[in-house]
Amino acid sequence: MENTLQNQLQFIIEADKMKSIFRQTMVLDKTKFENNAEHSWHFALAAMTLVEYAGFDGVDINHVVKMAILHDLVEIYAGDTPAFDISGNTDKDIREKEAADKVFSLLPPMQAAEYRSLWEEFDAMETPSARYAAAIDRILPFMSNHLVDGHSWQKYNVTKAQVLGRMAIVETAIPSLWPFVISAVEQGCKDGYIKL
Amino acid sequence: MENTLQNQLQFIIEADKMKSIFRQTMVLDKTKFENNAEHSWHFALAAMTLVEYAGFDGVDINHVVKMAILHDLVEIYAGDTPAFDISGNTDKDIREKEAADKVFSLLPPMQAAEYRSLWEEFDAMETPSARYAAAIDRILPFMSNHLVDGHSWQKYNVTKAQVLGRMAIVETAIPSLWPFVISAVEQGCKDGYIKL
Repeated sequence: MENTLQNQLQFIIEADKMKSIFRQTMVLDKTKFENNAEHSWHFALAAMTLVEYAGFDGVDINHVVKMAILHDLVEIYAGDTPAFDISGNTDKDIREKEAADKVFSLLPPMQAAEYRSLWEEFDAMETPSARYAAAIDRILPFMSNHLVDGHSWQKYNVTKAQVLGRMAIVETAIPSLWPFVISAVEQGCKDGYIKL
Repeated sequence: MENTLQNQLQFIIEADKMKSIFRQTMVLDKTKFENNAEHSWHFALAAMTLVEYAGFDGVDINHVVKMAILHDLVEIYAGDTPAFDISGNTDKDIREKEAADKVFSLLPPMQAAEYRSLWEEFDAMETPSARYAAAIDRILPFMSNHLVDGHSWQKYNVTKAQVLGRMAIVETAIPSLWPFVISAVEQGCKDGYIKL
């Protein structure tokens, strides 16, 4: 077997570690926390399913799905940094850039550059595809908190301003979902899961 | 929020159940069995990464990735049917067709038809994209068995002829991987994990 293919198989084997990187998001049957592999799949599925509601032109769904598949691979080495973990977020960028160097360098150079470019585009949240992707990536744990007793909102003593700040991108990226976000935030405040 | 969007969110919520449908494939760190959501993600990633080795023209990687994301949704209602479970496979087709009616009907009609068509194309294994997808879907649990002590080969007393039959599609769909398949099967026989 040629060396390039062996390296690609090694990358696929290394990626298996995504199945053991746990997030703060609960699976909706409340049996466990979700891992990165499960989340990346759900992100791709939700992106495909809601793309007709994208709030601006130029969203390429094939591009978004690839971003969804790749976007958390850096966490194999950088670990998951919860959205509302303030101290963890101070050095997140540098940890993830170092991790990107490591994980994508397993691949042949052209493929490494293609995957890294998709990850960087996602991370920068500037293109229409990346902004739509970010909104999907954020709506999923939001739905989990809404449906499962505001679990990570409570754990991190999250305020209404923090949740609205985190979710703000949905207002332009998926405008049809914005009323749902507002009403779920109001409900979270009423139930005491989100601090005022 | 309009009714169509509500139904699509309900579909995304229902799909969360994929995270609790377990397969016979072990995660490579040996801590647990893999679930459908994890597998579907790994399938999409491996398909993207190995597409340059597809053994025939006409493989559309964007199409394959969507198939990977959708291919196991029917198991929310039909359950996972292990490849080497002979009795489970006798009524697999009918159980999965009924499940497809149920899961895709949560969506608006045009989207339901699009997703069902992708699933049917995958399931029929006739188009270049579906044949390449099937080879990826089969190589991943094969790699797990190869790397984790032939666990499901042993559990189902699988023979060399059964493994080679299951993997035969790789020879034409991803010819560069065929020598690896042959050598891993020989190793599995030598180690006593595959029966002669």
